[in-house]
Amino acid sequence: MALAEAKLRAEFGDVIDHHTYVFCSDGDVMEGISHEAASLAGHLGLGKLVYVYDDNQITIDGRTDLAFSENVLERFESYDWHTQRVRGENDLDEIDIALETAQQETDRPSIIALETTIGYGSPNKADTAAAHGAPLGTEEVARTKEQLGWEHDEPFYVPDEVRDHMDATEEGDALEDEWHDRMEAFRADSPDRHSELRRRLDGRLPDGWDEDLPAFSPDGETMATRDANGEVLDVLYDRLPELVGGSADLAGSNRTLHDEHGVVAPDDLDGQCMHFGVREHGMCGIVNGMNLHGGVRGYGATFLIFSDYMRPSLRLSALMDQPTVMVFTHDSIGLGEDGPTHQPIEHLMSLRAIPNMTVLRPGDPAEVPACWQLALERQEGPSSLVFTRQDVPVVDRSELEVVGDASRGGYILADAPDGDPELILIGTGSEVPLCVEAREHLLASDISTRVVSLPSWEVFDEQGKSWRQRVLPPEVDARLAVEAGTPQGWDRWVGDEGDVVGIDRFGASAPYEVNYDQFGFTPGAIAERGRALVE
Amino acid sequence: MALAEAKLRAEFGDVIDHHTYVFCSDGDVMEGISHEAASLAGHLGLGKLVYVYDDNQITIDGRTDLAFSENVLERFESYDWHTQRVRGENDLDEIDIALETAQQETDRPSIIALETTIGYGSPNKADTAAAHGAPLGTEEVARTKEQLGWEHDEPFYVPDEVRDHMDATEEGDALEDEWHDRMEAFRADSPDRHSELRRRLDGRLPDGWDEDLPAFSPDGETMATRDANGEVLDVLYDRLPELVGGSADLAGSNRTLHDEHGVVAPDDLDGQCMHFGVREHGMCGIVNGMNLHGGVRGYGATFLIFSDYMRPSLRLSALMDQPTVMVFTHDSIGLGEDGPTHQPIEHLMSLRAIPNMTVLRPGDPAEVPACWQLALERQEGPSSLVFTRQDVPVVDRSELEVVGDASRGGYILADAPDGDPELILIGTGSEVPLCVEAREHLLASDISTRVVSLPSWEVFDEQGKSWRQRVLPPEVDARLAVEAGTPQGWDRWVGDEGDVVGIDRFGASAPYEVNYDQFGFTPGAIAERGRALVE
Repeated sequence: MALAEAKLRAEFGDVIDHHTYVFCSDGDVMEGISHEAASLAGHLGLGKLVYVYDDNQITIDGRTDLAFSENVLERFESYDWHTQRVRGENDLDEIDIALETAQQETDRPSIIALETTIGYGSPNKADTAAAHGAPLGTEEVARTKEQLGWEHDEPFYVPDEVRDHMDATEEGDALEDEWHDRMEAFRADSPDRHSELRRRLDGRLPDGWDEDLPAFSPDGETMATRDANGEVLDVLYDRLPELVGGSADLAGSNRTLHDEHGVVAPDDLDGQCMHFGVREHGMCGIVNGMNLHGGVRGYGATFLIFSDYMRPSLRLSALMDQPTVMVFTHDSIGLGEDGPTHQPIEHLMSLRAIPNMTVLRPGDPAEVPACWQLALERQEGPSSLVFTRQDVPVVDRSELEVVGDASRGGYILADAPDGDPELILIGTGSEVPLCVEAREHLLASDISTRVVSLPSWEVFDEQGKSWRQRVLPPEVDARLAVEAGTPQGWDRWVGDEGDVVGIDRFGASAPYEVNYDQFGFTPGAIAERGRALVE
Repeated sequence: MALAEAKLRAEFGDVIDHHTYVFCSDGDVMEGISHEAASLAGHLGLGKLVYVYDDNQITIDGRTDLAFSENVLERFESYDWHTQRVRGENDLDEIDIALETAQQETDRPSIIALETTIGYGSPNKADTAAAHGAPLGTEEVARTKEQLGWEHDEPFYVPDEVRDHMDATEEGDALEDEWHDRMEAFRADSPDRHSELRRRLDGRLPDGWDEDLPAFSPDGETMATRDANGEVLDVLYDRLPELVGGSADLAGSNRTLHDEHGVVAPDDLDGQCMHFGVREHGMCGIVNGMNLHGGVRGYGATFLIFSDYMRPSLRLSALMDQPTVMVFTHDSIGLGEDGPTHQPIEHLMSLRAIPNMTVLRPGDPAEVPACWQLALERQEGPSSLVFTRQDVPVVDRSELEVVGDASRGGYILADAPDGDPELILIGTGSEVPLCVEAREHLLASDISTRVVSLPSWEVFDEQGKSWRQRVLPPEVDARLAVEAGTPQGWDRWVGDEGDVVGIDRFGASAPYEVNYDQFGFTPGAIAERGRALVE
């Protein structure tokens, strides 16, 4: 969030100008993501970011020193943060001074370790884990009120004088009015810039943003879908100045580096290309934060295998309806020699299992622009764009009797010659061109075969039953799914009489052609499995 | 690994006594898990752990300062590590001194930042990212050999004098002999202790280890399966002195705290109960490391939702055939008021999707011991034990015509009265007793109903086709699966004519009874769905 603010301030001036405050706990600073995010915030010098660390020395299991004795402030100093310590939650003057000091430090993020007492005022449970995960209980609440000299018995009671003291509406109104004045002055001074900022804060894509996306035509050449991704991104960076993102140290491999649009750096936050470092979990958290702030559209990128590192943040983007986009390349055993540690098997299906996540795995370069369009047009949930490392052909659609296109999530890429298939091959990603080729074998054996490209289960689902049945007619029960990942879940589309060419073990280190051959992903092997189904 | 060594040394003396060396990179120290693991290692004072940090200032994308400028050694000092810096990979004397100094520091782990040059010797690619992810190439290899004065053209050529210089077999043999002598002396001195150590290093469970596991009988009371887990663990800690583990700050909730078996602490590493802190990813990495070291049997625990945090390490345990056991409690919307952020939906299925992972979700307290047995008897792959927060009944099996038991992964918990069902309800976990109750409703409507408890897909799979078809006869196509998680993947067991009572959205914050009612997990609603299937 602080990065979004700093970037917009760099771009639009003081109409965007606010601090970002974080209240964090012992548990937060123990979690790995706190290291990733704070290290990058220090590197970028996000001076308007202020953490208040509720340093109460108590976690759910007991005192923090059961498992935790690091020097948190020394650690944040190592990240180049400004640090302060305030002893005691009741020293309001010291807290005020610390907050003002943090605000005045504009070159570095700030952390204030505020030593507090959990369950403050409770005679028996203050400063113990008993005040952490459970209510104090009626008796202890009564004792606590007594100890604090609180004379009201009603629960959740707020006396009028407290309500008046805490009422910030007047001050808030004045601050808001002042901001509206600034925005009005900005509008008068720079009407175009003002309406651009308004558009971005509203999260609207500019008119015609997708007009110049590249199209990929079959010319006999092959091309990795990650390369098509690079070409699409090149146009998107140009058309969408709000697009901000990059890779977790795999920019070259993910094809996300487009330096000409500026690289985000400590002294130049205005660029659109991010280097997140080797910090996948932090990257997704930061992208979520940018999107929650608004005015920018964040995305991230890494290998598909490393989606595992960011699952908690991916899930939160789905739960918060945030339009986070992740680019995942190197999407199967097709990545080759890096071997099983780098070869996703369960990842496509595990991403599809997250509610409100849209997974998009284009079947060839020609499907890539439509997948990016679907991802960017989604406003209320995240998208995972999944691309190959290895080259795949652009499918020549000219004689395939195509019905529909990738924007429908699933469509008929190559129909049976009479439109009445006895066998349907269902592929995603790099397996789609293999299915198209397998269909040639099958047609040669007089097996009337349709190929369905299914880049997105979720988008296909949204099309309604009549489209789904147009593409996958219920009466055709010889259906073979082909995806270089776990077969788990594919029964849904192939049914009891169908079959799946998938992988239910870890991969292997070999050139991708060898892997594809050994794991049964060749046109011949697919045709053979299809033939067996029909027979 | 260093923790396993220190624990065994504390228990068995100097027959286990070695350093653990880690060679790590910029990327490693950027990742969040490096924070979690190093913070805990510092807390525990693992003095025989030595990191050599290959500080070459280059990542895949370029110079580290694109995204990374923290002071790594200051950070490790904040974790209470001993730190040193050596400038230059060729200063062998300095490296020697640093390693010896690190070895002499016995109270704290040590890190040596070794400033190196990536691609050393290459005239054009040294100290650049070009030497990181790709080979130097034939030309540059030739130039590098020239610059280094290397006169051999053959690739991978090792001259005899180098081979002789590097040959450590003699020194290694002597060290091994010396260790065997120590082991022999230990055997002579303490034959029982020696054979106990041998057993543990071989990874064999002791005879009769599972004889006194508790049995849970129906007595009208209800009990959370996490509570049954606590009772089983109490016996296991006693019978398996190699069992070492605990929770990521949820020991009370996970029922993993059994203080009487000793708590692992900086000055007392001999205990069996770990406090991992709020560090799920680090926990699974540490458990894997302990199991890889051997001599101890590591396990961890947290809420099922937080399995997301440790997926990369869970996957590695599966890939490395390590018998890591994870206890995951609070396994569904049944956890209640903590709401959607804490309620797993996709997690059971995502865990099942990992190759070589066994997921065990017992249907009632009575199935818990068998699930723990399956997990501990697995030698070549991890297990996830999944338990409820909420109470469930112990199913009274006395009049249910049970066929098989939980040890088979799936079995007939309650058969149709004639053994010839027209409807099969398939449940896991807390949904099993609901299915048993739904069966009563259905029998009252003259629908002959079988209930199958399926605590583990993977174990059920291993039983072979005849058992699977005994439990789920192919001719019975009215099958209803009931699991409080994503329905994705269940088609496999229920088939085209079947149905699933599942959850395909995020959960909700409410008392568990309200959630179960609203999401359709009541005996009445399940019976209704079953009736609709049959009709």
